Amino acid sequence: MLDVMDAPAAAIDAALKELGDILGTDGLTVDEGKVAEFRDPFAPPTGRWYEPGAVLMPASVEQVQEVLRVANAYKTPLWTNGQGRNNGYGGPAPRVSGSFMLSMRRMNRVLEVDEDSAWALVEPGVSFFDLHAHLKSSGSKLWMSVPDLGWGSIVGNALEHGVGYTPLGDHFDAKCGMEVVLANGDVLRTGLGGLENPRAWHVYKHGCGPTLDGLFTQSNFGVVTKMGTWLMPAPDCYMPGWLTLKNDSDLEVMLERLRPLMMNGTIPNQPMIINAVCAASAFWQRDHWYTGDGPIPEDVIERIAETPGFGRWVMRFALYGDERIVERQREIVSDALGTIPGATITFDKFDGHDLPEFENPHQRVQAGIPSVALDSMTRWYGGENGGHIGFSSATPITGRDGGAIRDLVRDQLHAAGLDYSGVFIVGKRSLIHVGLVVFDTADDAQTRAAYAACRTMVETAARQGYGEYRSHLDFMDLVADQYSFGDHAQRRFAETIKDCVDPNGILSPGKQGIWPKAYRTD
Amino acid sequence: MLDVMDAPAAAIDAALKELGDILGTDGLTVDEGKVAEFRDPFAPPTGRWYEPGAVLMPASVEQVQEVLRVANAYKTPLWTNGQGRNNGYGGPAPRVSGSFMLSMRRMNRVLEVDEDSAWALVEPGVSFFDLHAHLKSSGSKLWMSVPDLGWGSIVGNALEHGVGYTPLGDHFDAKCGMEVVLANGDVLRTGLGGLENPRAWHVYKHGCGPTLDGLFTQSNFGVVTKMGTWLMPAPDCYMPGWLTLKNDSDLEVMLERLRPLMMNGTIPNQPMIINAVCAASAFWQRDHWYTGDGPIPEDVIERIAETPGFGRWVMRFALYGDERIVERQREIVSDALGTIPGATITFDKFDGHDLPEFENPHQRVQAGIPSVALDSMTRWYGGENGGHIGFSSATPITGRDGGAIRDLVRDQLHAAGLDYSGVFIVGKRSLIHVGLVVFDTADDAQTRAAYAACRTMVETAARQGYGEYRSHLDFMDLVADQYSFGDHAQRRFAETIKDCVDPNGILSPGKQGIWPKAYRTD
Repeated sequence: MLDVMDAPAAAIDAALKELGDILGTDGLTVDEGKVAEFRDPFAPPTGRWYEPGAVLMPASVEQVQEVLRVANAYKTPLWTNGQGRNNGYGGPAPRVSGSFMLSMRRMNRVLEVDEDSAWALVEPGVSFFDLHAHLKSSGSKLWMSVPDLGWGSIVGNALEHGVGYTPLGDHFDAKCGMEVVLANGDVLRTGLGGLENPRAWHVYKHGCGPTLDGLFTQSNFGVVTKMGTWLMPAPDCYMPGWLTLKNDSDLEVMLERLRPLMMNGTIPNQPMIINAVCAASAFWQRDHWYTGDGPIPEDVIERIAETPGFGRWVMRFALYGDERIVERQREIVSDALGTIPGATITFDKFDGHDLPEFENPHQRVQAGIPSVALDSMTRWYGGENGGHIGFSSATPITGRDGGAIRDLVRDQLHAAGLDYSGVFIVGKRSLIHVGLVVFDTADDAQTRAAYAACRTMVETAARQGYGEYRSHLDFMDLVADQYSFGDHAQRRFAETIKDCVDPNGILSPGKQGIWPKAYRTD
Repeated sequence: MLDVMDAPAAAIDAALKELGDILGTDGLTVDEGKVAEFRDPFAPPTGRWYEPGAVLMPASVEQVQEVLRVANAYKTPLWTNGQGRNNGYGGPAPRVSGSFMLSMRRMNRVLEVDEDSAWALVEPGVSFFDLHAHLKSSGSKLWMSVPDLGWGSIVGNALEHGVGYTPLGDHFDAKCGMEVVLANGDVLRTGLGGLENPRAWHVYKHGCGPTLDGLFTQSNFGVVTKMGTWLMPAPDCYMPGWLTLKNDSDLEVMLERLRPLMMNGTIPNQPMIINAVCAASAFWQRDHWYTGDGPIPEDVIERIAETPGFGRWVMRFALYGDERIVERQREIVSDALGTIPGATITFDKFDGHDLPEFENPHQRVQAGIPSVALDSMTRWYGGENGGHIGFSSATPITGRDGGAIRDLVRDQLHAAGLDYSGVFIVGKRSLIHVGLVVFDTADDAQTRAAYAACRTMVETAARQGYGEYRSHLDFMDLVADQYSFGDHAQRRFAETIKDCVDPNGILSPGKQGIWPKAYRTD
């Protein structure tokens, strides 16, 4: 499989000349410093990694079409990204070094907000901060959903199956209606967007015929240029809560009690369950607690856990709605979870129509207000040189499964000499366990150990029945290898579609292990 | 475009011989009477309609693979159906007359029920009645979701974007994890089912890579052989409710008040709003009220509406969960909707863990208990010869849109001399308006008028921005024509995929306007 763009230098030069004519000086750069901003921010310090080529920034759908025309003509691959964050999974960097960066940052318009039906239509360069500012400045009464770091693209996050922490926190689920430029330049609108003048494109998720939206997520079949995203009316009452657990093994007990509360909607948002090391990393760097080599010892973790407000696990979650219903939900949650021996549970209560200026980032994000405060978590090792890889597995909400993935990730990271910093994000029926594999990017050996540990965990987890829901560039192929049922029927089907909708293989080759024909050895 | 299978008679004979060897006498029939059971039950009385060919009933995934191999060899098209209900949309009948019926009725096993995470894995021949019986006999504490007529296939219903009436009533949304046999015989499992031994296939909706499930709904890209479907723990309290509205124009007022209750989950199921004629059709045939020609007059509709328990519109809905929360939701709903002048609102309350034997079909289906009682609605005209076509449009939940689609459908049906029997099914952000176009199948002129009215409405509705979410065979192409954005980019994209995943065009040619290359004139 090819890892480096193999178009001849003359073709690349000719393509860049034509692209410059289309995009102008604002829309194309080959400046080394600017291109370097599109590297993986946590790349190993030495050696060649996933290297971006020239950066293209179209400003319109028509320019995207023109860019694709040129890329087809010269067979120069493009790697699409929205804002280009995606930290922990390779950032904006391409799987195939030298690919042109198709950055959507300049397509950053909020095209429409419907106050009644509560949705926004956005371009892929719109960040969570951008939409929030738009809602504020327009006097909207609607809330949005945001992930912990609000700098990313709303579209990019949804396409990567990302999450936020209001009741609309499943961002794949909260999208409704997309516009996609296909490799052949066709502009496809999904669902009811196929009508010339649709009334319900952003409220009903299907059209008549197959529902195509999922096809354009975590894939390389088109370039998404518009997306509807659902918002919510401000709730009368907003009640963020914290649960702390005293013992590591309380996790299993708690998950068994949490599952029914998620299934019946008593807790309507996506709670996050955070281990002691991860919680500490929001406030301190590692050397505040421990300066030794090897994984942080159990007695130090216990000391962190004993800090007021901490525990071996803490869970943030929130309730939303009519005050009397929220108060009853508080009782039910307290009875179910607060009664675990040694647990504490606390709540704050706010008028959803008149929120204060939250300083606490957890209170912000669960109210759909963007923040970047939790970026500090990646500075556990190495301070400003700190980095992380997301090792992110899906499991059922059971004590058995939550305990198993925790043990697996902890043991493998400890074997690699690394600390275990981990969170569970809780959905309606499933957990995403994110091993925040933290390391010092200035430490060559530790960086290599971190990437190696992830590759090992991909295979160990798959053998136990746990698949990654998202993946860093460095192990996308390995993750795809694990999806081997039916002699790799998933990958074969995806590549069959790839070959017919993008025959020149110009769109994000290698994304999620999907390679165009010219790059494959099959 | 070809409407009749054009394989040579010798090829058909040879194919049937091989298929007989594979399927045995239980699995293949050409008996005229049995084949006729697969006709559209509401076909016009004279002339050629959409005519089924031989009926194939595989009993295993391997037999499905073998059937596809033979169909590819002889280029004999198959029309897949689950239980073969789909009443109002052509029943089991094929778009291309003479297509072999690929009936999944014999693949009717409930493969697994997970009591903890609340899901079932079913084959496509499992009906709602079948799963309900399975849950009952196994002592399960879980509830399922059912449509008004419980005889259909759970898989088939979800693939057609069908609905039920519990909080899991969006059946597309409630599915999780599919197995699909592709035209080339590959067995594809979606999402985490790509792992060899997945723990979370039926609780997390994605894998790593594109989410493919939507591609296999309302389409002809594969044969679904397994599907996970979410169930729910029985709620402590089950409270079905009825709202009646005195005036036709109260609909608009009510929709404006209902929308926020749907968006914030105060009403968690999918309410159904029923007009007076439709409500009457559950209890009486038309001649009980009126025997004249032409549409039933306004004064007769008023008399129906004045019947105790009736109104110009009635809405059924239900609340589920903790009793105190449900009681508070009752208050909120009553304050918002019961205060419309002339409205009445009533509730019943049941212990969700110990339901009585409901006689009322509305109380049954909103508790996930299958029924076929409402089949009587199609007997409004013509009694046992009664039929209906579903004319089913998606709109936002607004007075403007609900009123517009009501006016459009009513006026066009009246112009065709037909009564207007209509319901709205209310989702989280959208309405599906179903014009139940009822007619007497023994009345040639009326039957033809009904089909003609639907074809006219497809175009009128599209001009106003309303698209069909599902369609009868007779106007599938016309509906697809309306999805014309980007010079019909949706259809072109679907047909591009069709040509590469089913190059011989054997799977359900013409389904939702998607035609294989050999049938197209492009």
